[in-house]
Amino acid sequence: MILDEINNPNDIKKIDKSEYKNLAREIRSFIVKNVSNTGGHLASNLGVVELTMALHLVADLPKDKIIFDVGHQCYTHKILTGRKDEFSTLRQTDGISGFPKRCESDCDTFDTGHSSTSISLGLGLVKARELLKTDEKIFTIIGDGALSGGMAFEALNNAQRLKSNMVIVINDNQMSISKNVGGMASYLGKIRTDRKYTNLKENIEGALLKVPHGDVFADGIRGVKDLLKRMMVPGMLFEDMGITYIGPIDGHDVEQVKNALESALKLDEAVIVHVCTKKGKGYKPAEKHPSIFHGVDSFDVKEGITNAKKKKGYSEAFGDKLVEMADEDERIVAVSAAMPTGTGLVPMIKAHPDRVFDVGIAEEHAVTFAAGMARKGLKPFVAIYSTFFQRAYDQMISDVCLQNLPVTFVIDRAGLVGRDGETHQGIFDISYTNHMPGLISLAPRDKVELEMMLEYARDTEAPVAIRYPRGEAVTMDNEARPLIEKGTSEIMCDGEKVLILSVGTMTQTAMEARKLLKKKGLNPAVVNARFIKPLDTKLLKGMAESFTHIFTLEEGVLTGGFGREVMAFLEDVDRVKVHNIGLPEKFIEHAAVPDLMDKYGLTPEKISETILENL
Amino acid sequence: MILDEINNPNDIKKIDKSEYKNLAREIRSFIVKNVSNTGGHLASNLGVVELTMALHLVADLPKDKIIFDVGHQCYTHKILTGRKDEFSTLRQTDGISGFPKRCESDCDTFDTGHSSTSISLGLGLVKARELLKTDEKIFTIIGDGALSGGMAFEALNNAQRLKSNMVIVINDNQMSISKNVGGMASYLGKIRTDRKYTNLKENIEGALLKVPHGDVFADGIRGVKDLLKRMMVPGMLFEDMGITYIGPIDGHDVEQVKNALESALKLDEAVIVHVCTKKGKGYKPAEKHPSIFHGVDSFDVKEGITNAKKKKGYSEAFGDKLVEMADEDERIVAVSAAMPTGTGLVPMIKAHPDRVFDVGIAEEHAVTFAAGMARKGLKPFVAIYSTFFQRAYDQMISDVCLQNLPVTFVIDRAGLVGRDGETHQGIFDISYTNHMPGLISLAPRDKVELEMMLEYARDTEAPVAIRYPRGEAVTMDNEARPLIEKGTSEIMCDGEKVLILSVGTMTQTAMEARKLLKKKGLNPAVVNARFIKPLDTKLLKGMAESFTHIFTLEEGVLTGGFGREVMAFLEDVDRVKVHNIGLPEKFIEHAAVPDLMDKYGLTPEKISETILENL
Repeated sequence: MILDEINNPNDIKKIDKSEYKNLAREIRSFIVKNVSNTGGHLASNLGVVELTMALHLVADLPKDKIIFDVGHQCYTHKILTGRKDEFSTLRQTDGISGFPKRCESDCDTFDTGHSSTSISLGLGLVKARELLKTDEKIFTIIGDGALSGGMAFEALNNAQRLKSNMVIVINDNQMSISKNVGGMASYLGKIRTDRKYTNLKENIEGALLKVPHGDVFADGIRGVKDLLKRMMVPGMLFEDMGITYIGPIDGHDVEQVKNALESALKLDEAVIVHVCTKKGKGYKPAEKHPSIFHGVDSFDVKEGITNAKKKKGYSEAFGDKLVEMADEDERIVAVSAAMPTGTGLVPMIKAHPDRVFDVGIAEEHAVTFAAGMARKGLKPFVAIYSTFFQRAYDQMISDVCLQNLPVTFVIDRAGLVGRDGETHQGIFDISYTNHMPGLISLAPRDKVELEMMLEYARDTEAPVAIRYPRGEAVTMDNEARPLIEKGTSEIMCDGEKVLILSVGTMTQTAMEARKLLKKKGLNPAVVNARFIKPLDTKLLKGMAESFTHIFTLEEGVLTGGFGREVMAFLEDVDRVKVHNIGLPEKFIEHAAVPDLMDKYGLTPEKISETILENL
Repeated sequence: MILDEINNPNDIKKIDKSEYKNLAREIRSFIVKNVSNTGGHLASNLGVVELTMALHLVADLPKDKIIFDVGHQCYTHKILTGRKDEFSTLRQTDGISGFPKRCESDCDTFDTGHSSTSISLGLGLVKARELLKTDEKIFTIIGDGALSGGMAFEALNNAQRLKSNMVIVINDNQMSISKNVGGMASYLGKIRTDRKYTNLKENIEGALLKVPHGDVFADGIRGVKDLLKRMMVPGMLFEDMGITYIGPIDGHDVEQVKNALESALKLDEAVIVHVCTKKGKGYKPAEKHPSIFHGVDSFDVKEGITNAKKKKGYSEAFGDKLVEMADEDERIVAVSAAMPTGTGLVPMIKAHPDRVFDVGIAEEHAVTFAAGMARKGLKPFVAIYSTFFQRAYDQMISDVCLQNLPVTFVIDRAGLVGRDGETHQGIFDISYTNHMPGLISLAPRDKVELEMMLEYARDTEAPVAIRYPRGEAVTMDNEARPLIEKGTSEIMCDGEKVLILSVGTMTQTAMEARKLLKKKGLNPAVVNARFIKPLDTKLLKGMAESFTHIFTLEEGVLTGGFGREVMAFLEDVDRVKVHNIGLPEKFIEHAAVPDLMDKYGLTPEKISETILENL
């Protein structure tokens, strides 16, 4: 095994170039084997094996800096920087992270996780290098998917002014998580596939030679060199923005990539190296279904992923209900930011392809685009993960709430997501939406209630947010339920002295906690808040009369959350004490969700303990 | 006066084209005269008079939709749509807004205010038109400055797929508020000024005619038409992204703009019409100093703006102190998002030009770029208005706080800003930063304390936010002050029973309120919180022993704010009542700041009333 010889950063430089192909193959097997056990981001990592090898051949680590955009494609980088032996703990509780982490290695430059930030971060390092007069090399690696994010463009727009080197590798695999969309993607596609450029170059040069006075072109024509370049060089879009372009390069040929990187390093400016790779490369099932193999749970290497018995989650429940509503109501449309599969929109795409808009990794645009549609009378449902909605905070306020437009924010993966860690936990959305004027905010306790809330959103002429977690869509009971009415909650069961007021699926946990508390002689009532805002003030006033302790319960950071508003509303009522249960104000590490729930006190056991302690 | 004939939408169509120049002149005089009284956005509005006239000639209002990006350039539009007679009330309390407002006219499509949203909104309208099978025209007008905002690019990236018409007017005046920066700006500049394209076209055509076998080019060359286009047509960057480009057009020639718009309307796709205008056009002082005349207070039409006796605000105090610190500490750098003047950075640009980075209207990039610099040991101060920091909410969390990087967020215009209205009030920043883990958040009570806090930020190896309002930088007293220490507040004066715990400059108001309360026989203590977070828990515990009522006071929305956390911290202490004073959770209209302070209960009089009522 060649891989046995690689135990520290820069070890790869000792490998003979004749062995690169074998090493790449070994790394791929290693990744497939491990990820089939741990789960993780498979297809993207298989795509960048040679690219990462080339980067490590050119860079001197940890002095030089490599920044992977998003960061989920850093597995080869981790393997090459001394983390091979811990790789079996990838994404596990107390194991290594699936993303770059400064605490794991000084070869990791930033703790990334969200898209389209790498060029900005790189530009920051370059400016610091200039001012501090150091000489490290700086590489950023950004996918063509991440290029659809606006801030990548903001950074490119600023990269033009650079007077010292920065290498921007565009890792072009024609995909974000799903198939890529938009003008930039088709432009890259054109460069990638169209042989026009090469043919043309030969033909033009030939033609010029044949023409008797071929040099007539030089006469009186200013800038002809520029224009010939424009004719013959791909990447003029970038050159037009003032950034030198090198490419396209075969991203699975280590030496070709290495040479391109070395050429790029010679220039005192920002240089794009356009590298073409294949997602899932080297593992047939992943090559064939890169979307499915983007992020996976454990699987059988030989069989691939079998759809067999995967339990339906809330995303699927949302998607199915949306189709049902859209069948009857032509105003209903859906917007996704590059994740139609993850957010459950595939059935909607099948049923109403002209009414689903995948805008690419572009959350800001997604929300404002929906505002535009709502203004004309459509009913857009914008489905984005809680953590990625953070990108559209201003647009939610300024473009939707301020104008009271009936856009529904479908906040998926709200709460703990587990193994993707700090950057992916959906723990801030209650806090960042709770102060948005005019927003009506809900969380369903189970699948049936999600469906009811989607209908409520459809029938409401105002901005609505519905948050729900990752995980299996449970139906708690089949009893008839009271209709959803603005600002009203649902009494799950009556009790004495203690009231648990829970948000969303925490109601399931509250019911379990209730059972435990009953064993301890307590008989707490449980109320499902339904509405995070507006508060059910009528019920709260009543409850404050009959209970001595109200425990609010939410799967989100407490600061600025639901519980705080309940507390503020009841501040004047002396006889009732309000206690908030939820997540602490901190970034929450990767681990299995049940482990995190336990650690942070959101299991029925921990909740009942907290309640007993606070009586 | 031709303007007398224009009282309703579409009236302009009755004007003979020979009168267009005179009408434009009259509109300009009208705008200058009014804005010299009311204050407002002058230079940008003078630049788009003819462009707006052309749009109104082509559009059928209110059926067709015109969307002005940002919206501060809508004055001519307002004048042409029946709001001429109310124009003297522009930006005044109870008067018309300086931005588009749906409640004023059905010719206003969206209530805008933040940059770079128009193409997204327009695309939403287009998609709705397609689905609802209507036939209105849709025009978006975006400045070259706003084009540097990432979400404009996200929208352009999606515009490529359009199968029906949308006109995107690029209003290219080479400025945002300050001089424009970046690759896109220099590209537009190249198109605008370089005659290469026109000359070349002639020369190439000539050359081809002269060459005996000019048609040799056609042989065996695929796509030669495309490539000739590439050689001869400006705007290929947009064409490369799949969007048809028309231009550059003289934006001060009504008929030329009208013709270009009409050509653009014929195509079933997104079309860019590149219109070149001059900021401040027609009013010499504004042409000469477009930055100064971007947004103005009332001024003398003949004299222009005299720098005479303008009082220094907190922005200037920040800028001066930053230079002082930067002189001594080479790590200090500053970042601005297209507003170096507004945020007080001009002295820093003069003193340390290589250490100030104006990244354009690109708040997301600004923050993450700063994170990059901080990672290498620099101390970046990112100065952005409270309302525009909303754009970088995710980057503040994910790129700065998560990695505990020592970036200082200098949150300018925090609190009520007055006449710019809903989209510009800085009322959410406490609520959206308060739950950011690890962020240290401060607000100075006056100029001296701002300087102390800037030194504190310099010496702190963690993310810091400092918020301060618009308005004159007061120094309350010259007494020696306790040093700034993490999580400690400052006792302004002792008292009994009632404690006012105030954030930032509200401490000045609290002291005034105290005087009023003393007349009523009360002797309240006043504490300047200094730190919004972390809370001064030690002091709070102590105070809870000695006082019966704590009134928190902040110039921001209460939900998720400072007061709520004080309340939560003291929930378990029965003997003290906490009452939060601040702004209600609503969008706050434009009006003079004192009027708003009074209306929303933040004057000393109103505060003392509130306190008396709640004892």
